[in-house]
Amino acid sequence: MNEMSIGLPDVVLQGFDALGLGDRLTVNAAIREQHSHGEDTTTPVMPDAVVFAETTDDVVRTLTLCHQHGIAVTPFGAGTSLEGHVTPVRRGVSLDVSKMAAILEVNAEDMDCVIEPGVTRQQLNEYLRDQGLFFPVDPGSHCTIGGMCATRASGTNAVRYGTIRENVLGLEVVLADGRVIQTGGRTRKAANGYDLTRLFIGSEGTLGVITRIRLRLHGIPEAQSAAVCQFESLAACVETVIAVMQVGIPVARIELLDEVQMGACIAFSKLPDMQPIPTLFLEFDGTPASVREQAEQVEAIARDFGAASFAWATDAEARNRLWKARHDAYWAGIAMVPGSRGIATDVCVPISRLAEALLGAKEDIAASGLLAPMVGHVGDGNFHTVILVPPDQPDALERAWALDKKIVARGLALGGTCSGEHGIGLGKREFLETEHGAEALAVMRSLKTALDPKGIMNPGKIFRN
Amino acid sequence: MNEMSIGLPDVVLQGFDALGLGDRLTVNAAIREQHSHGEDTTTPVMPDAVVFAETTDDVVRTLTLCHQHGIAVTPFGAGTSLEGHVTPVRRGVSLDVSKMAAILEVNAEDMDCVIEPGVTRQQLNEYLRDQGLFFPVDPGSHCTIGGMCATRASGTNAVRYGTIRENVLGLEVVLADGRVIQTGGRTRKAANGYDLTRLFIGSEGTLGVITRIRLRLHGIPEAQSAAVCQFESLAACVETVIAVMQVGIPVARIELLDEVQMGACIAFSKLPDMQPIPTLFLEFDGTPASVREQAEQVEAIARDFGAASFAWATDAEARNRLWKARHDAYWAGIAMVPGSRGIATDVCVPISRLAEALLGAKEDIAASGLLAPMVGHVGDGNFHTVILVPPDQPDALERAWALDKKIVARGLALGGTCSGEHGIGLGKREFLETEHGAEALAVMRSLKTALDPKGIMNPGKIFRN
Repeated sequence: MNEMSIGLPDVVLQGFDALGLGDRLTVNAAIREQHSHGEDTTTPVMPDAVVFAETTDDVVRTLTLCHQHGIAVTPFGAGTSLEGHVTPVRRGVSLDVSKMAAILEVNAEDMDCVIEPGVTRQQLNEYLRDQGLFFPVDPGSHCTIGGMCATRASGTNAVRYGTIRENVLGLEVVLADGRVIQTGGRTRKAANGYDLTRLFIGSEGTLGVITRIRLRLHGIPEAQSAAVCQFESLAACVETVIAVMQVGIPVARIELLDEVQMGACIAFSKLPDMQPIPTLFLEFDGTPASVREQAEQVEAIARDFGAASFAWATDAEARNRLWKARHDAYWAGIAMVPGSRGIATDVCVPISRLAEALLGAKEDIAASGLLAPMVGHVGDGNFHTVILVPPDQPDALERAWALDKKIVARGLALGGTCSGEHGIGLGKREFLETEHGAEALAVMRSLKTALDPKGIMNPGKIFRN
Repeated sequence: MNEMSIGLPDVVLQGFDALGLGDRLTVNAAIREQHSHGEDTTTPVMPDAVVFAETTDDVVRTLTLCHQHGIAVTPFGAGTSLEGHVTPVRRGVSLDVSKMAAILEVNAEDMDCVIEPGVTRQQLNEYLRDQGLFFPVDPGSHCTIGGMCATRASGTNAVRYGTIRENVLGLEVVLADGRVIQTGGRTRKAANGYDLTRLFIGSEGTLGVITRIRLRLHGIPEAQSAAVCQFESLAACVETVIAVMQVGIPVARIELLDEVQMGACIAFSKLPDMQPIPTLFLEFDGTPASVREQAEQVEAIARDFGAASFAWATDAEARNRLWKARHDAYWAGIAMVPGSRGIATDVCVPISRLAEALLGAKEDIAASGLLAPMVGHVGDGNFHTVILVPPDQPDALERAWALDKKIVARGLALGGTCSGEHGIGLGKREFLETEHGAEALAVMRSLKTALDPKGIMNPGKIFRN
């Protein structure tokens, strides 16, 4: 165990020895390196050790020991965080729960299931398909559902099916000191005391480690269809979205890609029929009649706003190609500048302010001299720019952060939030007080202190200490 | 101020004098009596004084003073609680916010609004009607929306539109010590730190006083229709509900009334066309085509389960009569036994266990020798029995509580909760540890202690001290 002497005190090393975690505890440098960062541009920090938990009891024993000795614990899932969540800034233990990936229970008649936190959306939906059920929350990465709970994730389907917040019925959580609690329950609603489930959803690993999740499921819709709607101007594209939402058409997805992003996707995902102009990708779920009705309503609105084209993707293959291209948008953007890194902004605004927020961001991007393709879960008022940081420009990272701040500042001024779905982590902490006010932030800190008095759980995240 | 000497220490009386609340502070016995109970059977307790807050600042000043001197504060809205929430068991101040009833802001394009806590659903919907918007959460009483937030209320429309939890975007809350915080925001979603909004929703006045509420609104549906579907057997009625939910038909309301409740409603609300047999009241919202489609699907399912009749109520007047009758169901039940009081049970179970829960409750009622009409928001798995306590039977109250416990115990054994929507208050505290486990309850207590260290906020509610 020599390699562990880097950071953990001897007494902790002896404690881990006594736990008998065997291979589940490692100080291997390559594995520690993998656990030193997510998919963001934060400076990596190596943990002192990585624990691969396989059971709730592994988590309990690890936390109990770390709590006793004040060792920092950073939960780790698939490592897809875009805001530095999994970077163990105070070293200590990276607690990897990705091997806790069992689907424990599916209740088709109640449309719920119980899973371990390392299960991914893809894995779960593969498993559920034969039962006519699906889990809708789709952030578009190969993240774990535990990570989605921790960051209050959402994605393309949230406009219709809600975010992870609306799709979790209950949790098992191991608290900082090793106590295990069950939150929520099996019913669709309850008025039975404080909503602990919602307290842990979005707490970013700072209050405890999620070890089981009870999810709401949905019936696979009888009919689905998709469409691609292209516009000469971004303004017309956004106005179409606002009108669709205000009329109340229950679209399943309504995704915007600007002309830069469309250019990238056409090249990356081979979409020869599309133009590099502002575009909406749409999906409609329901009965055959309601899907037709929704799509006709949207087409009529889009035509009113001067849509250049409105093309159907009715067969499953065309639909899958479309959504695959949308999912790969981040990588298509990165591929525009070989070797670049991307900083993802995540502003969300009230729908009526979406045009201002988007068009303003476009101006800021133009002024920055950087390339930043834009995509948006625009039905929710949420959009991302991936600011590309070229490897050969020494000042580019600084300019990129300056651009990020400008886009966020405008979002906040428009009544929005700095984060629609990626979470705060390290990257958005500076905006939090502006957004909530000092007193609300103090309340959040007091909850943190109540549940994690020693501050061992994912320290440095959400709060600037 | 002589009458105040009943309870408040002189120093507090002097403090109130200095606040200059004028008529907004009263010790009038009749007013204190009004604030000694809700609509439940809890033994009334008179507060020492009642403050009628008219502004957030009134609330701030009252709480600051009470916090300083450790005086209990019990928030009061319309006084419609069914679980003893507004009974000031430790006397002190009843803080009535019902005069804070301004609609401060309506944003039609973002479909949100900001209101004060004393606004009722009826008042808000009256105000919104011209703008084509409505607020859907409908517990069926003349409660305030502040009270709905405090108890995590829901009601007949929740099956389609969600509970109050899903329809609140943010809050202004005055904490126990007088600090004011803003929670949530204007966006449809956010991943920006702990979900304080959801922490206060359902906290039953034990963590602070809600002084402003930002609500999500919905567009008034293009088409609406209602139907009444009657069954010879309760089992067939429940099986129909389960099938409708499992198929995923987005019914706007699906309400069950058993034969006892139907008998009461026919007499109370003059419904000559209906039979005193198990009945579903249904509502469908959407476009004309989707409303027709949903209703046809439901009728087909009901016929499969042997429905005795399926009658439409398409015109607005017939629909209003129907829902008025449903809203008055509680009073129709009480009217069956003149002078009686009612104990409302509020069990909610997973939908697959609804038949067992309902039919089991019917057996328990029969065995008790008491009369207890039954209604249910059955699409959510939630049902109420109003156990009638006749004035002339000395042991009836005890028998009623025994019956209540039996129905709750079965609900919990079926994976359910003791409260779908009424909250815990005084009446359901004993079930909470069974439901959540000791550790989760300890976490709730630690949150309470973090935000209200002196325990002045609605003491005695949720937790048994």
